Amino acid sequence: MEAFSDGVIAILITIMVLDLKVPLATDLRALVPLVPVLLTYVLSFIYLGIYWNNHHHLLQTIERVTGGMLWANLHLLFWLSLIPFTTGWMGENHFAPVPTALYGIVLLMAAIAWWILQHRIIATQGKHSLLRRAIGGDWKGNLSPVLYLIAIAVANSARWISLGLYALVALVWLIPDRRIERILMGTDRQE
Amino acid sequence: MEAFSDGVIAILITIMVLDLKVPLATDLRALVPLVPVLLTYVLSFIYLGIYWNNHHHLLQTIERVTGGMLWANLHLLFWLSLIPFTTGWMGENHFAPVPTALYGIVLLMAAIAWWILQHRIIATQGKHSLLRRAIGGDWKGNLSPVLYLIAIAVANSARWISLGLYALVALVWLIPDRRIERILMGTDRQE
Amino acid sequence: MEAFSDGVIAILITIMVLDLKVPLATDLRALVPLVPVLLTYVLSFIYLGIYWNNHHHLLQTIERVTGGMLWANLHLLFWLSLIPFTTGWMGENHFAPVPTALYGIVLLMAAIAWWILQHRIIATQGKHSLLRRAIGGDWKGNLSPVLYLIAIAVANSARWISLGLYALVALVWLIPDRRIERILMGTDRQE
Amino acid sequence: MEAFSDGVIAILITIMVLDLKVPLATDLRALVPLVPVLLTYVLSFIYLGIYWNNHHHLLQTIERVTGGMLWANLHLLFWLSLIPFTTGWMGENHFAPVPTALYGIVLLMAAIAWWILQHRIIATQGKHSLLRRAIGGDWKGNLSPVLYLIAIAVANSARWISLGLYALVALVWLIPDRRIERILMGTDRQE
Repeated sequence: MEAFSDGVIAILITIMVLDLKVPLATDLRALVPLVPVLLTYVLSFIYLGIYWNNHHHLLQTIERVTGGMLWANLHLLFWLSLIPFTTGWMGENHFAPVPTALYGIVLLMAAIAWWILQHRIIATQGKHSLLRRAIGGDWKGNLSPVLYLIAIAVANSARWISLGLYALVALVWLIPDRRIERILMGTDRQE
Repeated sequence: MEAFSDGVIAILITIMVLDLKVPLATDLRALVPLVPVLLTYVLSFIYLGIYWNNHHHLLQTIERVTGGMLWANLHLLFWLSLIPFTTGWMGENHFAPVPTALYGIVLLMAAIAWWILQHRIIATQGKHSLLRRAIGGDWKGNLSPVLYLIAIAVANSARWISLGLYALVALVWLIPDRRIERILMGTDRQE
Repeated sequence: MEAFSDGVIAILITIMVLDLKVPLATDLRALVPLVPVLLTYVLSFIYLGIYWNNHHHLLQTIERVTGGMLWANLHLLFWLSLIPFTTGWMGENHFAPVPTALYGIVLLMAAIAWWILQHRIIATQGKHSLLRRAIGGDWKGNLSPVLYLIAIAVANSARWISLGLYALVALVWLIPDRRIERILMGTDRQE
Repeated sequence: MEAFSDGVIAILITIMVLDLKVPLATDLRALVPLVPVLLTYVLSFIYLGIYWNNHHHLLQTIERVTGGMLWANLHLLFWLSLIPFTTGWMGENHFAPVPTALYGIVLLMAAIAWWILQHRIIATQGKHSLLRRAIGGDWKGNLSPVLYLIAIAVANSARWISLGLYALVALVWLIPDRRIERILMGTDRQE
């Protein structure tokens, strides 16, 4: 399951580069229209990097893979697979309102898919779930959808605030999920 | 063999996203022509997900990889590799009759390739084959080609029935092959 | 090394599908110009499948990976990576002489790269090399370059003979390298 | 971490092939405009090959993966992911000054990202770091950025010198990092 997910995320990250179309002119100004495309690419690269990173930690808490988990995982990958499309639409249109809102909607759906995957794993592990203890209150997981919703709502009137919120959520998650890391290492020590 | 197949299926899934071409306009109506493309993408995503999922279970029953299996596996991957093409043709032409029939033909060939792979594995395992017991009557495997054939036959006169049949087969398979899972776990317990 | 090579070959196989461009029309005749493209795709798919298959067997004979092997392997992957380009050029131009000759040249270079990789591995293993015994006279490896050379030479005057020779070499190799398989199993039994 | 990086590098290598666009004509002259594209492809193929090769050796010295390493690794992959773009821009414009300089800038950033990754690993391993002993003075790592800087500076007036320098750095690195290999084997022997 990890190899397949790693593969899909690796391909999605590199597919986005294809939107950086080689310009015909060869002076520096030829790169100017590519700046918003590049900035969006960086943002989406970080988002996919975060998902890859946390996915890596998440799967380490799994003891037994069930069919339900495989499908919850595919569901997550489906929403992630739409990120190159929304990245391209938003980047090539200088952050127009509708593409900017759609970018947030796909991120929101991916966040929900992540939440479902997490709770499917917890459900399998029973009440002493390692993962449940690891995520605890999960303030990051609760905060992100709220910020996405605000970003989607204001995309029409204040798209720069939307972009700022997308960047903020990325920043919040940039720090890898040390909670899971810590609990996992604590378990190792007890064994 | 699993890593390679996982890789190919992961790439096929993500290659289909490239057919979701970024529209030039930036209003919501710009997304309307993409709706059939997106729906077909979802359907093909689920089909490839099913193959990946069941492939995963199937390979767990293999004890020894033979050259014949490698080629039966490549044969399956060949038909799966045509899915992005038929997906694009059907989705971009609002489910026109010929593309809709071709979509079914490729699915049918993939189902036959799957059947061949399954029987190659069973042949290697002898009469006490774990896999043979696991699949049992294999009503799903027998039903799917029949439904595909009906869908192909009626594509010209009633393409919505064809699409409904494709969706129905996907639904039937969505439930992961618990038969193999159960037998595998039973074996584990006996050991 | 195997994971990386598997990845590259998997991507090459699926990149070729992108040359099957979705036609605008939706009737059966729209598929006619795609027939040579599809045939070339099938041929190249089989070639890459053969390399993947034999590569799989080859790497099983390696006991220690050296820097030289890594580079000999990359050299092989370089020539294989040109196959989608020559496949597209030949297929989209109805087997015109120059593209047909170039197709053979790339196959020839890949065969030479394979030979180099094989001999690098044998050189590391010393005179009791498992691989040397396994390949023995290597008539397939010796015959293929000769057939490629003939195919390249006659491409201008008799391109159908060239194509026939490419298909013949593929056929000769289609049978997986049982020699290596046999020797490997013999070794296992002795241990 | 290795599987994901291998995946990304494998995809980047093969994505570059997509810039070798199939020409419409079928005579030998149709290939002439592709020569600079092919040469740039070869250069970038070697660069990505070097990174893959040394990355392979680098990861073997890691005992424990930290979140910081994952991000330093993603940072490296980000700069590597821009290589297909700069390769295409430089190759399709016959080594025009600005694209040639940009090619060097991305290589320079990748070299810096490599340096950061290396020092993150060393920092985790403490003062008896296996990797620190292995890289020693690291003259290659120190020389490359200097040569890149010269190449970027002279790209406007003497682009062929820039290209020569890029080729020279590739040549210097072509020899796999035997230092790490040697130290690793020394350690094995002591155990």
